[in-house]
Amino acid sequence: MAVLVQKFGGSSVGTTERIHNVAAKVLKAKKQGHDVVVVVSAMYGETDRLIQLAQSLSKSPSAREYDLLVSTGEQVSMALLAIALTEKGCSARSYTGVNAGICTDNVHTKARIIDVKPDNIRRDLAHGHVVIVAGFQGMNAHGEVTTLGRGGSDTTAVALAAALKADECQIFTDVDGVFTTDPRLIPEASLLPTICYEEMLEMASLGAKVLQMRSVEIASKHNVPVRVLSTFNEGPGTLVTLEEKIMQKRLVSGIAFSREEAIISLSGVPNKAGVEGYILACVGEADIEIDMIAQNATDGVHTDFTFTMQRNDYPKTLKVVEQLANELGAVSVKGNPRVAKLSLVGIGMRSHTGVASTMFKALGNVNINIQMITTSEIKISVVIEEKFLEKGVRAVHQAFELDRITTVKHQAYMES
Amino acid sequence: MAVLVQKFGGSSVGTTERIHNVAAKVLKAKKQGHDVVVVVSAMYGETDRLIQLAQSLSKSPSAREYDLLVSTGEQVSMALLAIALTEKGCSARSYTGVNAGICTDNVHTKARIIDVKPDNIRRDLAHGHVVIVAGFQGMNAHGEVTTLGRGGSDTTAVALAAALKADECQIFTDVDGVFTTDPRLIPEASLLPTICYEEMLEMASLGAKVLQMRSVEIASKHNVPVRVLSTFNEGPGTLVTLEEKIMQKRLVSGIAFSREEAIISLSGVPNKAGVEGYILACVGEADIEIDMIAQNATDGVHTDFTFTMQRNDYPKTLKVVEQLANELGAVSVKGNPRVAKLSLVGIGMRSHTGVASTMFKALGNVNINIQMITTSEIKISVVIEEKFLEKGVRAVHQAFELDRITTVKHQAYMES
Repeated sequence: MAVLVQKFGGSSVGTTERIHNVAAKVLKAKKQGHDVVVVVSAMYGETDRLIQLAQSLSKSPSAREYDLLVSTGEQVSMALLAIALTEKGCSARSYTGVNAGICTDNVHTKARIIDVKPDNIRRDLAHGHVVIVAGFQGMNAHGEVTTLGRGGSDTTAVALAAALKADECQIFTDVDGVFTTDPRLIPEASLLPTICYEEMLEMASLGAKVLQMRSVEIASKHNVPVRVLSTFNEGPGTLVTLEEKIMQKRLVSGIAFSREEAIISLSGVPNKAGVEGYILACVGEADIEIDMIAQNATDGVHTDFTFTMQRNDYPKTLKVVEQLANELGAVSVKGNPRVAKLSLVGIGMRSHTGVASTMFKALGNVNINIQMITTSEIKISVVIEEKFLEKGVRAVHQAFELDRITTVKHQAYMES
Repeated sequence: MAVLVQKFGGSSVGTTERIHNVAAKVLKAKKQGHDVVVVVSAMYGETDRLIQLAQSLSKSPSAREYDLLVSTGEQVSMALLAIALTEKGCSARSYTGVNAGICTDNVHTKARIIDVKPDNIRRDLAHGHVVIVAGFQGMNAHGEVTTLGRGGSDTTAVALAAALKADECQIFTDVDGVFTTDPRLIPEASLLPTICYEEMLEMASLGAKVLQMRSVEIASKHNVPVRVLSTFNEGPGTLVTLEEKIMQKRLVSGIAFSREEAIISLSGVPNKAGVEGYILACVGEADIEIDMIAQNATDGVHTDFTFTMQRNDYPKTLKVVEQLANELGAVSVKGNPRVAKLSLVGIGMRSHTGVASTMFKALGNVNINIQMITTSEIKISVVIEEKFLEKGVRAVHQAFELDRITTVKHQAYMES
């Protein structure tokens, strides 16, 4: 018998028929003898409907009231799921974030969970109830409703799993798990049986929108085993866990990518101390968020400075940088608003220096020119022309044989 | 400066445009220097939508979860109104029933308010905020959400007004106030400037659906001045208050009526002690609710027993009564499923015995046969053929000159 936290997103509870299916899944786990806590999002479309109501009344709605308003979406889902479970003969009790003891800071609409006091939940589990909790919401120190921002239901689930010392936190989604890369782009992508927290964080932050980043951080900090799996298909999904618990060691685990990027290079900048900081400060003041940064001191006297940003910030950024080039006496400004970022992620590359050269060779073999490179301990990112993205991802995917990862049957609670 | 509680029903907050109008009304009172607490119902149609969701999942939804579900309807309205007020530059804070301190018993879906602890509200009023409270809901002793049943928002408003010792509780509706009778039937009906609690209770219980009965009971008990007025038209509405505060004394205040009634008479029942109780018990066991009861001991040996019920219970009731007639050796059973009840209400009739005879004469003058009569201290009810209802109401209305009540301008907070 285990303690399981199961999270179902908005599309999983999008209709009353789907809520019935979720109830059946929950009941199955309960009948296997597990203590089950379920976290639900709002029914698909409901949060947007509520936001539209608020915005039709005010361009910048009061944050306190906005939270009271949108938190009703999950409250509806939780009560409906409890009704569906009770109808199936399974006693179930639902709780809002406030009553589930989800304590947050005071930042309305983007609150962070700072503590969980699951006394009600523990008591109900001890009485044999299934407990359902509204995701995405909590309460501040004044007992007022706060919301965690979009995607916050994952975070609710993982934080609850940590507080309850759950055996597994199961995130049910509309995909089968975490893939080596986006299967919509590369159909031969493999489902990963396991991935470690660090890799998942890099994948999440790079645009693989399977799990919310904050939830992975909490899972990593409290060592909560998180399983990503499908609401609609059977299968063991992907277990996100500690590096040392992963049996099949791999050099790399996956390729994340993001489109809609732009790049700007400033070359021949006279290399004075603090010049990079000055450039970034000027760009930051124009409210532009920078992603990757690379710098080469070409000849000791001049330096080249390259960075990327979101594509729609490109025109604004170019203007700022051209002024800077004048001011600093730089030789040239070059830019490209149609690039993409491709990132190879793998905990194994920490100890294998050959990973980078294999990656660059693979791109070179298909004639893709790399415009920029940055690296971290478990990630190598390159910027390439967006039109070559698919070709590049496929080349790197094949070079590391990511299409040949076999799904070893590993234990999943819920699967019989 | 006064403390006002204003209640707006579902059609008053049915669209975001109407919510803007309500905000303007609230702001007007606030700008006149009053402390304002607003109670809102769910947006028109929202409660039904939520109930349908629940019923599509279960024929008898868990009452605890049902309350958590439907209470979101008012939570949405309250937050939207707060957003609209804030947009107009008026600081406003909304509270659910739980956070407003509305304490109820533990009867989910039909809870009764047993206490109000308006600490949050008092604090916010002292800080100059408008306070908005979700109607129709509260919390039980375990801190769980309960609902008061349909129409419960009036009760929330009056209970809050009592706890806050408000100067007036203003119930905004889609009618201009309380009329001498339903103006849809009798267009010459007059708007009553005032009515006392006892009369209002009789009017409410007799089918004049302006105010929920329970709210009038609480208002009467705590002596809360209640004003019924229109959300959409200007005007002072009707003040419901203590008898002794009403300046213009009237013999009678209004005529209530209800259609869809049926009558059954059992004549010639051998008059033994307890026979009436036995008849009622048998009818009650068949789950039939009886409204009016009259009994005449015709000759000392036999008795005639007549009562009314809702029309759709008539066939079932007739069957039960025919069996009873056999069993008790009654002479005959007669019934009519197409009758209506017409009731004259007035605190003044306590000291004027002539009221009944004026009423009966008025009906006789237009050839309406009275099938049954019951009386209480401030009410006379008769049963007549339903097809004569309009004629009967008009005759009695004219006999007491109810079409000539003049609306004396009396002080209403809000009206300038």
